[in-house]
Amino acid sequence: MSDLAPVRVDASRGLMDPAAAARELYARIVELYPICRSITGDGVRATLERINRELNLSVAEIATGTRVFDWVVPQEWNIRDAYIADLSGRRIVDFKESNLHVVNYSEPVRARLTASELQSRLFSIPDRPDLIPYKTSYYGRTWGFCVTERQRAQLRDGEFDVCIDSSLEDGHLTFAEHVLPGDTTDEFLVSSHVCHPSLCNDNLSGITVAVSLARLLAPVRRRYTYHFLFIPGTIGAITWLALNEGRAANIRHGLVLSCLGDPGAPTYKRSRQSNAEIDRAAVHTLALAGHPNRVREFSPYGYDERQYCSPGFDLAVGSLSRTPHGEFPEYHTSADNLSLVQGSALADSLGLVLDIVGIIEGNGTYLNLNPRCEPQLGRRGLYASMGGHGDTRGAEQAMLWVLNLSDGHHTLLDIAERARLPFSLVRRVASTLEEHELLRSVPGGSAHAGGGGGR
Amino acid sequence: MSDLAPVRVDASRGLMDPAAAARELYARIVELYPICRSITGDGVRATLERINRELNLSVAEIATGTRVFDWVVPQEWNIRDAYIADLSGRRIVDFKESNLHVVNYSEPVRARLTASELQSRLFSIPDRPDLIPYKTSYYGRTWGFCVTERQRAQLRDGEFDVCIDSSLEDGHLTFAEHVLPGDTTDEFLVSSHVCHPSLCNDNLSGITVAVSLARLLAPVRRRYTYHFLFIPGTIGAITWLALNEGRAANIRHGLVLSCLGDPGAPTYKRSRQSNAEIDRAAVHTLALAGHPNRVREFSPYGYDERQYCSPGFDLAVGSLSRTPHGEFPEYHTSADNLSLVQGSALADSLGLVLDIVGIIEGNGTYLNLNPRCEPQLGRRGLYASMGGHGDTRGAEQAMLWVLNLSDGHHTLLDIAERARLPFSLVRRVASTLEEHELLRSVPGGSAHAGGGGGR
Amino acid sequence: MSDLAPVRVDASRGLMDPAAAARELYARIVELYPICRSITGDGVRATLERINRELNLSVAEIATGTRVFDWVVPQEWNIRDAYIADLSGRRIVDFKESNLHVVNYSEPVRARLTASELQSRLFSIPDRPDLIPYKTSYYGRTWGFCVTERQRAQLRDGEFDVCIDSSLEDGHLTFAEHVLPGDTTDEFLVSSHVCHPSLCNDNLSGITVAVSLARLLAPVRRRYTYHFLFIPGTIGAITWLALNEGRAANIRHGLVLSCLGDPGAPTYKRSRQSNAEIDRAAVHTLALAGHPNRVREFSPYGYDERQYCSPGFDLAVGSLSRTPHGEFPEYHTSADNLSLVQGSALADSLGLVLDIVGIIEGNGTYLNLNPRCEPQLGRRGLYASMGGHGDTRGAEQAMLWVLNLSDGHHTLLDIAERARLPFSLVRRVASTLEEHELLRSVPGGSAHAGGGGGR
Repeated sequence: MSDLAPVRVDASRGLMDPAAAARELYARIVELYPICRSITGDGVRATLERINRELNLSVAEIATGTRVFDWVVPQEWNIRDAYIADLSGRRIVDFKESNLHVVNYSEPVRARLTASELQSRLFSIPDRPDLIPYKTSYYGRTWGFCVTERQRAQLRDGEFDVCIDSSLEDGHLTFAEHVLPGDTTDEFLVSSHVCHPSLCNDNLSGITVAVSLARLLAPVRRRYTYHFLFIPGTIGAITWLALNEGRAANIRHGLVLSCLGDPGAPTYKRSRQSNAEIDRAAVHTLALAGHPNRVREFSPYGYDERQYCSPGFDLAVGSLSRTPHGEFPEYHTSADNLSLVQGSALADSLGLVLDIVGIIEGNGTYLNLNPRCEPQLGRRGLYASMGGHGDTRGAEQAMLWVLNLSDGHHTLLDIAERARLPFSLVRRVASTLEEHELLRSVPGGSAHAGGGGGR
Repeated sequence: MSDLAPVRVDASRGLMDPAAAARELYARIVELYPICRSITGDGVRATLERINRELNLSVAEIATGTRVFDWVVPQEWNIRDAYIADLSGRRIVDFKESNLHVVNYSEPVRARLTASELQSRLFSIPDRPDLIPYKTSYYGRTWGFCVTERQRAQLRDGEFDVCIDSSLEDGHLTFAEHVLPGDTTDEFLVSSHVCHPSLCNDNLSGITVAVSLARLLAPVRRRYTYHFLFIPGTIGAITWLALNEGRAANIRHGLVLSCLGDPGAPTYKRSRQSNAEIDRAAVHTLALAGHPNRVREFSPYGYDERQYCSPGFDLAVGSLSRTPHGEFPEYHTSADNLSLVQGSALADSLGLVLDIVGIIEGNGTYLNLNPRCEPQLGRRGLYASMGGHGDTRGAEQAMLWVLNLSDGHHTLLDIAERARLPFSLVRRVASTLEEHELLRSVPGGSAHAGGGGGR
Repeated sequence: MSDLAPVRVDASRGLMDPAAAARELYARIVELYPICRSITGDGVRATLERINRELNLSVAEIATGTRVFDWVVPQEWNIRDAYIADLSGRRIVDFKESNLHVVNYSEPVRARLTASELQSRLFSIPDRPDLIPYKTSYYGRTWGFCVTERQRAQLRDGEFDVCIDSSLEDGHLTFAEHVLPGDTTDEFLVSSHVCHPSLCNDNLSGITVAVSLARLLAPVRRRYTYHFLFIPGTIGAITWLALNEGRAANIRHGLVLSCLGDPGAPTYKRSRQSNAEIDRAAVHTLALAGHPNRVREFSPYGYDERQYCSPGFDLAVGSLSRTPHGEFPEYHTSADNLSLVQGSALADSLGLVLDIVGIIEGNGTYLNLNPRCEPQLGRRGLYASMGGHGDTRGAEQAMLWVLNLSDGHHTLLDIAERARLPFSLVRRVASTLEEHELLRSVPGGSAHAGGGGGR
């Protein structure tokens, strides 16, 4: 795509080849899957280095102890090895087999424990005996192992050697940004969390969609500045917001991307504003995508939309996923692996994001230059010359809607909603009418106004 | 009716004798049916002359070439004869049998054509082999014939003589107005298109209902000025609006009448304003009419509401029909004939219009003169004196509603909507309460305010 | 309860022991049941004296002839005896058996009548032959008897002596008030009608719930002043409002209590304002009460909400009942007796009122003191320290909702509605967050604002 002359983003879905995108999106997950990530440490750095091979990232290292609003950047955690071994030295539980085996942020330990002492340090899922749960303890200093219920059953008697070769020391929290400047400094935020270890849907899926999105948007003309954040969940978003309060004020629209690779139906969770332009663009996109979808009201739990939508910021940031976190059975277990995520689902998710971006880019307010009665479209070749038996066609209907509602108070998205027509069609006929000097764009007229105009 | 002393329009349904109305409405269609109408020409003039026998019309002739907003008044079309004949002179297709046989606005032609040359000039409906379609080409100069599929089948071989003895020359566009002055100069517009040739439902039905309505409203006292337009569709409405911009500003309410004679359920299509007083009056009327009905949102296609509701006018003009245009199988075919339309359906349609007019005439805002606690209705003979076991009756409930909501902010229609009572009952008890000096009308208080008050 | 240190009303449901309340509520009805009440007279006085044994009432006597808005206080009615006897002196219909036998407000009469003359003075319910109807004639001077259909059947032949030993003379209308002062002079009105004779659900049930409510609220700290009215229906409310116009302006919330003892599902009828804080509190309470319920729109018929919600007052007064008046088969008949009302239903009704009061007392607006991003709840022991597999618990979700929406524009009730959480939980976590200095109350910030904020 990059060898093409700049095109407008609003022809967005056309920017993507679905089959090639599916392959690229999945392959990136395969590479990132083995890395043991956390909210700090070398796993995040390795993840960002891999992304940096495709996107020119700006990486920030924020020192332990830095105050960020009500929080403090924690010590940095790194881990090299961990195991539970019997006295013969045979590893019963081995970090090298799955980095989920260690409670994330476990302090270092080397000890010999009886089976019963060890049991109290283990987490498993009794009714799903083959899965390792994912556990963290970022702010309560402790250690533990996550095991399958079958592994726990093996520990009935005797003593065991446990080792967690980790470090929990002053260091840094790492995150990265990638910015694609647009015609304006108004920003579209794309945020993905990079703190989960070997879990695919949550959230290598969000990361890989964000990377492909950035690559697709790079060569095209953009109205908005696109701001990609690859950050540890919660503390990363809080840190970025604390260090970028002024910049956050430029954010007009945003999406938190997570859990975008499972085969479930897509889900959009509204921003706190509930009916912001991003919310309406996403709902419109999902409604027209031709498959089932879910639209959820905002709630203050979930991923980093919690922070972007805190009352002091109240940004128009929604969240796109397929099956929402916590609602797919593999969630936060070892079953969230390379089998759960699918290239086709990832590509479909990327397509939805492109459609949403296309609406946000293409929305605007127009003024009908012949507001009294209809203009004569037929004379301009815009209307079938022969009337009578038969239906008015889609494009003609869209033109009549755009002309009728282009009174300076309705955006194209308002019009698409009221007319129940695809935004892409409304956008296209608006351009046609503009070329025929039947319509003119209202300067500064304002996709942001949005809202209830069309209701 | 006209020998009665003036009564208020709001006793509107009582103005009509259904059986007599059914006969009158249908008989008028029978007379108008044979005329070959178009958007200009002698067919329109003959139609208006027939109407003028009942209503004193003011007829306007607007010259070809007159600029009307983005349009130009076209040349005038007239036709005397047309046929397709075999070389023996036998007419296979004959305008005298049905004026639908000629594409409306066909330029004159006399020629001998092979069957295959002729085929490209024919329009038929393959899956409805006995019907002639209705086709027009007002703004693309061409000619053609509309035939049944069976007629087309007869033309397999040989040569044919075709003749369209029409003229397409500078002349005039003709329309007519009939005005019934009211107590105020605020207007209620009733618009019907007169441009379709021998088609009954579309739109002799609208014309005949408008004529009977004008006759019924003539002898009664009217709050609004009623402005009847008999105009060619689209170009006629555009022409009238272009020549009457100032007058259009007086239009407070309006109805486009079309397709009012088929046996289908009545349909109201809202104005662009969506919830104007006319919209609410029509929806209320249909809901209480005791048979199924359809309420449609505004869309910028249909009949002349397209022009009245263009953004530069945005008039509160809705559209009343039975089965909407394009949705009955006979639409724009020769099956839209004297068998499709029924006197009883026409009379029911006229009754609905009268009910709507009754609401618009009778609506108003009142002030409860005893706003603190209820007045003692029983003392005035307005309330059953013996309480206890049993229900409060309808009129008593209506009185309590009118008293409770007559705070200067609710119209009677607001009250009827909130109380889920018939407007006619609310109107009647308001008059009773006014007579007992429990209520007074708010001067200028305003049916126009209308809107969401009752929602 | 009264020996406890003052607690806040908003822990309201805890103020009540359901079993003890059921006994107390029912026992009070048993004592009040025999009294023959009317809109004036000694029956009302006896009723108020019984209440006065538990609550310190302020009793008012308003003279016959006093003008109260559009009404006049009527003559006082008292009755000692009444009967229909055959000529042997045997009483066929006897007031001493049921005070429903006399049309309430019957003028005195002593006469000998034929059976057919008598028939015209009788009221019965043909299709319910064992029930005595309840009839009144407050403002039409007449007399009559209410009998069972079986009693009427006994009167086929002969003559009868009728006696109504009543008086209808200048006197007084009696009502009582009980006021529990609060931290503010803003009032919560609790109104029950005391004019029905031996009918239990209508309205000894409302009276007994009001009395127990007053007793439970007496010892606790109250934000609002609670104003209990025990008044004759309609004329009593009108009289009180006419004499207390200034005081009525202090009423911020109110409930009319009636028909609270039958086993039917609870019903809340909205105030005229429709979505006032009292309306929202009641709807929220009923929705969370764990059993079926009915919410009705306001209508200007019913009990004294008719007067409180007249347009000149338009007070935020709703009505709580179980099966609404007129909708239970025993309504206004002798079957509305001690068998119809149940202690458990009365106690459930009292609990609902306490919950509603708890919301009104506990509602308020707060400001998140860390509005940018979430505060670190875990550090304060307010959040589970170990994340990962599993759900966020209810209290944590409630804290996040309160923090997210405490922007000065949402009340706690707004938050409970939007979060679909119990108000009591939202209230509790708001207090916890306030203790941790994460939230502060907005002074004067205003439960009254209420309304659509949470919609």
